[in-house]
Amino acid sequence: MTEDVVALRRRFHEWPELGFLEFRTAATVASTLEGLGYGLATGAAAMAAEARMGVPEPAAIEAAAAAAEREGAEPRWLDRMRGGMTAVVAELEGRRPGPAVGFRFDLDALPVRESEDDSHRPAALGFASRRPGLMHACGHDGHAAIGLALAARLADREFDGRVELIFQPAEEGLRGAAAVASSGALDGLDRIFCLHLGLGLPTGAVHGATEGLLASTKRRAVFAGRAAHAGMAPEEGANALLAAAQAVVGLHALPQYAGPGARLNVGRLRAGEAANVVPPSAELLLETRAPTATAEGALGEAARRTMAGAAAGLGVTVEIEAVGGAPEGVCDPGPAELVRSAAGEVPGLAPAAGPHLDSGSEDASWLLERVRENGGDGTYVAFGCSSPGGHHSPEFDLDEAALPLAVELLERLARTPAR
Amino acid sequence: MTEDVVALRRRFHEWPELGFLEFRTAATVASTLEGLGYGLATGAAAMAAEARMGVPEPAAIEAAAAAAEREGAEPRWLDRMRGGMTAVVAELEGRRPGPAVGFRFDLDALPVRESEDDSHRPAALGFASRRPGLMHACGHDGHAAIGLALAARLADREFDGRVELIFQPAEEGLRGAAAVASSGALDGLDRIFCLHLGLGLPTGAVHGATEGLLASTKRRAVFAGRAAHAGMAPEEGANALLAAAQAVVGLHALPQYAGPGARLNVGRLRAGEAANVVPPSAELLLETRAPTATAEGALGEAARRTMAGAAAGLGVTVEIEAVGGAPEGVCDPGPAELVRSAAGEVPGLAPAAGPHLDSGSEDASWLLERVRENGGDGTYVAFGCSSPGGHHSPEFDLDEAALPLAVELLERLARTPAR
Amino acid sequence: MTEDVVALRRRFHEWPELGFLEFRTAATVASTLEGLGYGLATGAAAMAAEARMGVPEPAAIEAAAAAAEREGAEPRWLDRMRGGMTAVVAELEGRRPGPAVGFRFDLDALPVRESEDDSHRPAALGFASRRPGLMHACGHDGHAAIGLALAARLADREFDGRVELIFQPAEEGLRGAAAVASSGALDGLDRIFCLHLGLGLPTGAVHGATEGLLASTKRRAVFAGRAAHAGMAPEEGANALLAAAQAVVGLHALPQYAGPGARLNVGRLRAGEAANVVPPSAELLLETRAPTATAEGALGEAARRTMAGAAAGLGVTVEIEAVGGAPEGVCDPGPAELVRSAAGEVPGLAPAAGPHLDSGSEDASWLLERVRENGGDGTYVAFGCSSPGGHHSPEFDLDEAALPLAVELLERLARTPAR
Amino acid sequence: MTEDVVALRRRFHEWPELGFLEFRTAATVASTLEGLGYGLATGAAAMAAEARMGVPEPAAIEAAAAAAEREGAEPRWLDRMRGGMTAVVAELEGRRPGPAVGFRFDLDALPVRESEDDSHRPAALGFASRRPGLMHACGHDGHAAIGLALAARLADREFDGRVELIFQPAEEGLRGAAAVASSGALDGLDRIFCLHLGLGLPTGAVHGATEGLLASTKRRAVFAGRAAHAGMAPEEGANALLAAAQAVVGLHALPQYAGPGARLNVGRLRAGEAANVVPPSAELLLETRAPTATAEGALGEAARRTMAGAAAGLGVTVEIEAVGGAPEGVCDPGPAELVRSAAGEVPGLAPAAGPHLDSGSEDASWLLERVRENGGDGTYVAFGCSSPGGHHSPEFDLDEAALPLAVELLERLARTPAR
Repeated sequence: MTEDVVALRRRFHEWPELGFLEFRTAATVASTLEGLGYGLATGAAAMAAEARMGVPEPAAIEAAAAAAEREGAEPRWLDRMRGGMTAVVAELEGRRPGPAVGFRFDLDALPVRESEDDSHRPAALGFASRRPGLMHACGHDGHAAIGLALAARLADREFDGRVELIFQPAEEGLRGAAAVASSGALDGLDRIFCLHLGLGLPTGAVHGATEGLLASTKRRAVFAGRAAHAGMAPEEGANALLAAAQAVVGLHALPQYAGPGARLNVGRLRAGEAANVVPPSAELLLETRAPTATAEGALGEAARRTMAGAAAGLGVTVEIEAVGGAPEGVCDPGPAELVRSAAGEVPGLAPAAGPHLDSGSEDASWLLERVRENGGDGTYVAFGCSSPGGHHSPEFDLDEAALPLAVELLERLARTPAR
Repeated sequence: MTEDVVALRRRFHEWPELGFLEFRTAATVASTLEGLGYGLATGAAAMAAEARMGVPEPAAIEAAAAAAEREGAEPRWLDRMRGGMTAVVAELEGRRPGPAVGFRFDLDALPVRESEDDSHRPAALGFASRRPGLMHACGHDGHAAIGLALAARLADREFDGRVELIFQPAEEGLRGAAAVASSGALDGLDRIFCLHLGLGLPTGAVHGATEGLLASTKRRAVFAGRAAHAGMAPEEGANALLAAAQAVVGLHALPQYAGPGARLNVGRLRAGEAANVVPPSAELLLETRAPTATAEGALGEAARRTMAGAAAGLGVTVEIEAVGGAPEGVCDPGPAELVRSAAGEVPGLAPAAGPHLDSGSEDASWLLERVRENGGDGTYVAFGCSSPGGHHSPEFDLDEAALPLAVELLERLARTPAR
Repeated sequence: MTEDVVALRRRFHEWPELGFLEFRTAATVASTLEGLGYGLATGAAAMAAEARMGVPEPAAIEAAAAAAEREGAEPRWLDRMRGGMTAVVAELEGRRPGPAVGFRFDLDALPVRESEDDSHRPAALGFASRRPGLMHACGHDGHAAIGLALAARLADREFDGRVELIFQPAEEGLRGAAAVASSGALDGLDRIFCLHLGLGLPTGAVHGATEGLLASTKRRAVFAGRAAHAGMAPEEGANALLAAAQAVVGLHALPQYAGPGARLNVGRLRAGEAANVVPPSAELLLETRAPTATAEGALGEAARRTMAGAAAGLGVTVEIEAVGGAPEGVCDPGPAELVRSAAGEVPGLAPAAGPHLDSGSEDASWLLERVRENGGDGTYVAFGCSSPGGHHSPEFDLDEAALPLAVELLERLARTPAR
Repeated sequence: MTEDVVALRRRFHEWPELGFLEFRTAATVASTLEGLGYGLATGAAAMAAEARMGVPEPAAIEAAAAAAEREGAEPRWLDRMRGGMTAVVAELEGRRPGPAVGFRFDLDALPVRESEDDSHRPAALGFASRRPGLMHACGHDGHAAIGLALAARLADREFDGRVELIFQPAEEGLRGAAAVASSGALDGLDRIFCLHLGLGLPTGAVHGATEGLLASTKRRAVFAGRAAHAGMAPEEGANALLAAAQAVVGLHALPQYAGPGARLNVGRLRAGEAANVVPPSAELLLETRAPTATAEGALGEAARRTMAGAAAGLGVTVEIEAVGGAPEGVCDPGPAELVRSAAGEVPGLAPAAGPHLDSGSEDASWLLERVRENGGDGTYVAFGCSSPGGHHSPEFDLDEAALPLAVELLERLARTPAR
């Protein structure tokens, strides 16, 4: 089993795919689960198309599907995932009645160029990314491998109730979970566990819950003006670059007035082409964060007004579109205590008493919220996994010793409920 | 006559009054003209109350009227000018039929503290301002004196047609002429001459016309937010000072995009009180200028959008009010040529061939526009008058030798038409 | 005794004085303490002149001293306090050896116009401020009264060691304590207690310590440019208003990059006069705050660079001056426990277990820091005192029942050490 | 001859090359001129390497040279032009003594994708650009052709004095002429004519001089900060995008204070990558313009201070580099009159009395300035050439009927001096 989960992780690591483009990964997951006897929901049964955010251009989606097919992915899965519908939700009934318990795993990689240094284990051992510029730099390769290894363990159906394994696309950028939640695929669950490797914790450390995950929205704003010769007739132009710059400056004043812990970042700006032309267009990417979705929503609305105001003064228009987002993460004490208790029984794990504190953002929040709305509960498990580099860095790596420990923990949680 | 116009000027100089507060000055004018046999329009007959801009607070108006009364102004005039209706329009029929010709004189002074230096002639000769902080620093004392001296000359009615003498309040800040124009008091005129002393020209120089006077609007913007403790709860505040600052920064980008010659200035800003309070209020004064009222209007509209946009982002409101304004100055060639011709006949005057160039602004533009709309014509005469200090400076003074020359010129123009 | 401390408080309340202008108050304090047998340090012996911040103009200082003299203050004290050196430090040796313990009281009032409403007790009972526009709206009148009542109690010298009573000027704006600390007047102290009434706590509540008081600096920045006619020659001007506005906009981006809990506020801005003049000057007041003096210092330095940068681009100069400031407040557990213990023995007081949380700022921090640097310790005591209005509001009032309770507590602390 | 100049132009049109990369074009020019008997200066003899601005990366230079070689350019010329030294200056002595007269032609094309529409003559007739994304969209193909046709005419040496033909690289972006001027290649000239086709004038119109060409500098500014996680630790970052945005906002206030006719444009901005990372870098391109190099220099210096100031406040550094520039264009009356006179003798040309007004910028200004400094004179000739599209547009085209007319005019000017 240890070899299996490690081998699986390495295979996923070699073939990273960006969000909504995880055709090869998702097809592998689907084939494996089908072979194990699980019932599968894919495509629109597993995710609501219109609830996705930041979906790539159609051409990019088609290219990714075509590449997956060339690489051997089964066309019948690709058909079902057409248009970037790459979620897979698998379920299996236990031999005895009992609660329905879900486990979430995410599938997507990042636009990071992986380290080729000899000190980087994937490079040294030959399982580094085969797609230049893409990398599993956040551990989702490990998550997917854990999910399949868990599926294999549970194929004996020796548990009470029902198990649901949710393989979610596009966690990066907070783009995919809302679509999975909206599909209704989770609606029968009594409980959900969302586990994440790493988070700065060493192998062995486990927190049953996580606190502090901020609500966040990512937005793209496109400013459209009018080009003109900058020397001869600036008055014929409408300066979109300047409008965007004024917006950026105004936006950065907002966090202080949005309550403790609020954050705003304009991470990217592209505007204009030539020195002597009044720039007719600008595009910026920004994110807002706050401890609650309400506070984050108010900050986002202030950001919208700020951008619209800057544009208006210069005769420029602005279109703003959400390309990702999630509410704050909320964990329930019941499942958190179950994790702590189960971890205490796994040799090599040292469960912590309190929650892990993390001021990042996670779209698992959507899944937790949905299950809670339906009367269930859930938690976000921080599962230690030493790494020489931080999340999202070219040197990120997983301590593979953590993988079977995670499988072991989740298996206990799956078999626990009716004990 | 020379002594008369000089003595009149000095008396006006001693008792400067701000715009719409010229009770003493206007009462003197009205009494004198009445004594000379002119028919008078005052109050609502001479100016439309609602077309005034930047009217002082009622308390200031009452205080100024009370001071004028204490100083000997006739109550019957003050009654007619109640509420700051300080325009006086006087007319006299000549002995023969002919055209109706108007002459404009302005009455108001400035909030400038007059020089007490011995080198400043009004101080040395003892006719400096008796109202500390107020001063006739633009020459309107001379204009009013010229008007009365002209009235005396023409009292013989030895001219064709009809003469109208318009004594206008509140030229400073471009606040009064629109109200005079709107009243209809000028509507029978065939021609109007608006003369200004000085303008950087030495005594003797005369231009029959002026070119380049910019259309301009002065505005007050009041930003209203909400106070809060800056350390403990900034999120409970709405920062009006910051909104005003963002507006200021945005406004200064506009002139480059408003066509050649456009100008914008935020001349004054007041906001907040204490270092540790989120400032709940801010007030700014701004002016926009451009070669045409159309261009100026577009710039003003962009300015409005810029201020509204800055306010909106921070949850602040902004109220914007015009407190002054005038269209660009347009002079007609006919009357300009008449001026040149008449000036050529006055010893001591050297008329210039072309127009005077001036990129300031003047609310005489409203009067010229009104007469033109009614089928008449007019011009803005730049009449040289040497001064040791610039207009609006504490050292400004009139070369009194210019005053009788101006009377002489205007008299010729009044008697000219049907020659 | 109850009547005494209340009567004292009411007398101070009637005669509020601003920071460094507390001549009448300080002379009363000095006379009383001298009469009780205390040794006094005043003037340069009690505060370092050059370490004061935000000192008023000399004319204002002289006027305040003259008013105090007219009102009966003894000239010999006024002489010693010349120039605004209004601190009084009094000491008394106990009958037995023991530690030196200090107690701090502040003297200054605020530029707040006191409520004249019948519901406002000082107005109803006839002891409201006799100086229009000034008010003891923070409770320092109570502090000074408590200090004198305590002095009277301890005049029996029935305690171990030495007692030092520090009457400090100019706490508002964080301007006076640094000067007292720098004078060395506290340098022999083993312990110091700084008590503040109110802080949102009801009468009876007592916290032995306060946590969260932010380090803060208040600064005045004066931008100097060059005036010019805004229509005819803006290029001859240097726009100080615009530089200040750009600085304001830049400053508000800084808190997000200055660490958790950092704050910045530009509380006041004054610039320019007339709409048609390029504004030659601007003045702003700002404050920076952060959980540590180090973080606050870095934020202040970034603010300085931001203002200098904005000025430089427009050919404007900026002078920045600190007008107030204090480090973060740090309380020691030993004296906090002494307070809790002593409060437990006073009927009517209910000591709380933990510290009071307050994210304001206080210049008592300087005194605590100085004593700690000399090997001693100290604490900032939050002493409940119900009020119908918040601190600094026109309706602020002290529940006078709290005053004798505070005297009682401090007396116990003074007599405690060698028990 | 008509066919020759048209055929030459079409060949150049097919093979556009960007500034400092005109290897194929310059080698063709050099070979042709050598064949006609001209003495040639190339490489460092024709341009000072260090005076070039905005030189492409070495790899781009080498790639362009290699392409030219593949396409048949003679290696001996490419050798001399190594590193992007693509100027060619040719001279020929006349049979009689006389003055030295220069003619300037520019060689480079633009990064514009040429229209493929049937209505676009080069596309319809089959001589459109063979380099996708590059296009002779400003008429320099015509200029080079005119230069070679003129060279052929003058090969008879039937003129007085000496003729110098200057083929200059990199006029676009104002990058090449300063290097030619600095090389000294022009230092013996008594007179220089710089002709430009089009400029909005129809075929046949000729102005002997051009007025209003603005001094201009193009600059690249690179802001360098520090990346950080925008949610978890923004205080560890230094936000280069924000610094650039603040700079942009500040920069746009400067033109109003830089004198009449001043202009500033930030034409391009690139900053950051991901929404959740504090952006560590930003790059902007800006240009400043003014009627004189002095005014433009002052504006540029203010721009530098503005950018440095914005960077400093945020702990960001900025490096600013000039990538192009030229002084204002100044034409002398003598050569302008010669043009007018000569044009009057060419059937089909209609010389205008006054100068052409153009508020663009041109680096021919450097050449005119250099010749004038050496005691000579010169002019910039606006030579009408109808086009369906504006300069720099994909539809730009030359009315080829203008080409032989230009050759005819220049020939007369070359043969004129000692007539």
